[in-house]
Amino acid sequence: MRYFTILENGTEKTAARDGSGPLFVLDRFADMNELIRAGGVPSIPEGAPEAGEDAVILSPVPRPLQDVLCLGINYAAHAVEAGRFSKEAFGGERPYPIFFSKRVNYSQGPGAEIPSYEGLVDSLDYECELGVVIGKDARNVKAGEARDYIFGYTIVNDVSARNLQTRHRQWYFGKSLDGFTPMGPCIVTADEFAFPPALPISCLVNGEVRQDSNTDCLITGIAEIIAMLSEGMTLKAGTIIATGTPSGVGMGMKPPCFLKSGDVVTCRIEGIGELENPVR
Amino acid sequence: MRYFTILENGTEKTAARDGSGPLFVLDRFADMNELIRAGGVPSIPEGAPEAGEDAVILSPVPRPLQDVLCLGINYAAHAVEAGRFSKEAFGGERPYPIFFSKRVNYSQGPGAEIPSYEGLVDSLDYECELGVVIGKDARNVKAGEARDYIFGYTIVNDVSARNLQTRHRQWYFGKSLDGFTPMGPCIVTADEFAFPPALPISCLVNGEVRQDSNTDCLITGIAEIIAMLSEGMTLKAGTIIATGTPSGVGMGMKPPCFLKSGDVVTCRIEGIGELENPVR
Repeated sequence: MRYFTILENGTEKTAARDGSGPLFVLDRFADMNELIRAGGVPSIPEGAPEAGEDAVILSPVPRPLQDVLCLGINYAAHAVEAGRFSKEAFGGERPYPIFFSKRVNYSQGPGAEIPSYEGLVDSLDYECELGVVIGKDARNVKAGEARDYIFGYTIVNDVSARNLQTRHRQWYFGKSLDGFTPMGPCIVTADEFAFPPALPISCLVNGEVRQDSNTDCLITGIAEIIAMLSEGMTLKAGTIIATGTPSGVGMGMKPPCFLKSGDVVTCRIEGIGELENPVR
Repeated sequence: MRYFTILENGTEKTAARDGSGPLFVLDRFADMNELIRAGGVPSIPEGAPEAGEDAVILSPVPRPLQDVLCLGINYAAHAVEAGRFSKEAFGGERPYPIFFSKRVNYSQGPGAEIPSYEGLVDSLDYECELGVVIGKDARNVKAGEARDYIFGYTIVNDVSARNLQTRHRQWYFGKSLDGFTPMGPCIVTADEFAFPPALPISCLVNGEVRQDSNTDCLITGIAEIIAMLSEGMTLKAGTIIATGTPSGVGMGMKPPCFLKSGDVVTCRIEGIGELENPVR
């Protein structure tokens, strides 16, 4: 099943598509967080209305319950390019994953603009990532059982201001500006993929391929991420984990090439879809 | 005014005390987050019932709306001791503040235990801090206007697992374990103090004074913190900012002296009160 949040007649609604069928409105859920906690629906409910043709697809989770959890430097080739940009801030291979978080006051969906914060940000960068959505409260979950706690997957663009990441040393603020977490176009339920999912992942800027990898190349895999985080920190249903980005970000290019107003960033993960956002 | 969250007859309630008067229950607010958004009450409402003698004082905000924002290394003497412990992870003076955050699934109040996570954490530490509670959504706020956005102040113990902070490089996970953010005993409204507040702040472990400073010794002051964060990141009403800890933490002692099961940590800020928690 694929779950969407749509805007129809000025109202946010949850919606679902089974396979390649039409998009149906699920009016029993106040929002996606409630849908996730309820475990979704086993099938499209009888009598559910079809979404109108003018419905706009928003981020599947416009208002995440909590800050989005993130993995840093979780693809091997990205570790090399990041260290080249700033060894102090990003460099070095680590025996343990780097966890951080980003505030998401509001996540925008496909087509919505990414603000460029001229004057504050001089090195705006994209990071296409597989987002894991937790389906039930996870505490002390063993890696072998982690799969049962996953509701589904989405695409996250972990937009980053490199100058703020290094200026404030911890990455938090440079990741947390309003508009820095586009997501979408939908959440695909975990049963639609093998585990762990091995999905081609790519990112294009103005049509030029910048990132091109596969989600089975994670250094710390999804099961281990959930096991490690949930040892001590409860992952509530609705938690979103961005699992790290492949090589090919702007700061890794020679010379670095950052996003500027007018650019268009397209994040793709096969089986989930496409998340395209222009830079304002 | 001083606002509390109490547990009475199995129910969480908001309560208020004016000056040194009795504690009254405010039954019009579902929780402290709602009270904050409403701006509190101008005076104790007529007919408000007094809290019972068996009422238990909880954290003023048991369930913060979002992760708690934090300042790292924001007292000069703490910068020295932290760098001595691990130059790579904590060292160095910076021209800009260090911002990070901690997940707070549930904040416990005075008297509640701090878990020690034996086997996972080998260097459990305390950090007594002045917590600033934002009263209305703040975006692009100038330092000169920051005071208007502050609802009040509380005490935060930013409990930290030093080994997890360094192991995962970014500090997030080592700060975010369940039970790592005791707060209390109340929120004192901003009008009760000068701005910026100059309040003696101290922390004792088993009765021995470990931290002893004043909240006017912040490197980056409260107005500048709000101005800098809100440039790009909306601080929603209810946001809690822990403004950093003075010198005297366990990792700064020679040799380092971390918390162990049975220890009692007492955080004090004059004019706010005392937050005492035993380590489990």
